[in-house]
Amino acid sequence: MAVDTVEFAGTGEKFEWAAGSATFAALATAFFATPRVVGVVGDDFPKDMMDALKKRGAELEGVEVIPGGKTFRWHGRYAPDLASRESLATHLNVFETFSPKIPSAFRASRYVLLGNIHPALQSSVLDQVEKPDLVAADTMNFWIHGERAKLEALLPRIDLLIINEDESRDLSGERYISRIGKRLLAMGPKRVIVKQGEYGAYLFDEHGTFHAPAYPVESVVDPTGAGDSFAGALLGYLDAQPVLDRGAIRRAVVMGSAAASICVEKYGAKGLLEATHDDIVNRAREFASLVSTH
Amino acid sequence: MAVDTVEFAGTGEKFEWAAGSATFAALATAFFATPRVVGVVGDDFPKDMMDALKKRGAELEGVEVIPGGKTFRWHGRYAPDLASRESLATHLNVFETFSPKIPSAFRASRYVLLGNIHPALQSSVLDQVEKPDLVAADTMNFWIHGERAKLEALLPRIDLLIINEDESRDLSGERYISRIGKRLLAMGPKRVIVKQGEYGAYLFDEHGTFHAPAYPVESVVDPTGAGDSFAGALLGYLDAQPVLDRGAIRRAVVMGSAAASICVEKYGAKGLLEATHDDIVNRAREFASLVSTH
Repeated sequence: MAVDTVEFAGTGEKFEWAAGSATFAALATAFFATPRVVGVVGDDFPKDMMDALKKRGAELEGVEVIPGGKTFRWHGRYAPDLASRESLATHLNVFETFSPKIPSAFRASRYVLLGNIHPALQSSVLDQVEKPDLVAADTMNFWIHGERAKLEALLPRIDLLIINEDESRDLSGERYISRIGKRLLAMGPKRVIVKQGEYGAYLFDEHGTFHAPAYPVESVVDPTGAGDSFAGALLGYLDAQPVLDRGAIRRAVVMGSAAASICVEKYGAKGLLEATHDDIVNRAREFASLVSTH
Repeated sequence: MAVDTVEFAGTGEKFEWAAGSATFAALATAFFATPRVVGVVGDDFPKDMMDALKKRGAELEGVEVIPGGKTFRWHGRYAPDLASRESLATHLNVFETFSPKIPSAFRASRYVLLGNIHPALQSSVLDQVEKPDLVAADTMNFWIHGERAKLEALLPRIDLLIINEDESRDLSGERYISRIGKRLLAMGPKRVIVKQGEYGAYLFDEHGTFHAPAYPVESVVDPTGAGDSFAGALLGYLDAQPVLDRGAIRRAVVMGSAAASICVEKYGAKGLLEATHDDIVNRAREFASLVSTH
């Protein structure tokens, strides 16, 4: 959970707002299921966002509030085409000594999303939960290069690795998507999703290869949180399904893509905050027409 | 029609072979229909390739052979990742004064592909043909920037613009695929296909938006001719269909993607020369599984 200061070089705008992977993912999960949030904030984390999460049914007892502490803060600037961004400042603050503690009420959760933190901390979360149906994990180049051994130890313990295309190339050492998928599956996770931004996402699992296009949005306003929205909606949708089979996970990828597309159309978490369950589902329905050969 | 000298910086290899848009497109068309080729060569164009085209049923009376002339020659070098290439030399040779003359036997052709030449020459081809069912045209940045007015005059006369993503941004002035599609349709063509290389292709027409992923090949050996294979197979497939409806054109995009993927797996035209009709169709069938949400 974070407070971001985001500048947009294209428009000259600058904003500060509540953000962070857990925030975006929880808002997206809430379209389908009850998010249980684990994280840490200072007493500066915007109350509006805490209220918005509560209003959507999020269970927040896993969110530590450190009195007198300051929330993790990121300050960045997007290039005019929004395709890249530079980090101007990162203050870990209360996040620096964060070690996730899973409340006992959360330990039997069926779906677990391990956010993009140190792989040893991700493993420590798994040590605290009881037999979930599916464990998904995100990671990033920082851990791929800096903590490769710990990341490799985590991968066989997870059911779904969700990773950006750039990161997937770094982790697999492969250039082409088909080989990337094979190589990453061989590293241990049961399923792998490679996200290609505006070009969609690939899912690799025992049933083969699936591709979902990105929803062709009219324009992107702010890419922040797209990946977290994707993961949050995907797991929320799965939690609401009777069976976790080949079709369910494929449709969950589409649902994740729909949520991500709604996220990027507005600033910060605004897209997710304003959308309804039906907005996500209606957008996901358009995917069927987008790939129909009839 | 061209003789290419192609260097691969990644492997240090260097080859010379028969190539050119018309050659690749005709080989790909021949999987489904009879290609009628219009072009110009010198007497140095490899006889093997002419024989290969004839063997596949291509009608070659539109190919002018200039005695003592030299064929268009391109010499280029691909970067190690094959994502970019530099032109080391281009010799127009007999192509310099080429003005396409459509043989009378070709004038009633139902499908016409206007290769990537000066838009005024593309228009002159259209003046020579009788009411085709569909006219497709390729173009490139060189004409978009240098001959924009003539290109804009051509667009309302064609049924299908086939264009790379970079070029589509240049021509439309838009960044996002959805707006690119709308803007390009507004410029006159009945349908627009935007090719995104390894990320697939979008089709925009009166029926809406269609997306086909690229076939996830294990590795790319030589990207030359991928776009021409795409267009050639697409039109060949359409020519073999009873009705040119929404589904036919969508399936034709998939067939084009299948042919392009087979082209890039081997050097030069080798992939197309070694493949059969069934290889293309079987690969196209895999697309159904790739996007199935069941």
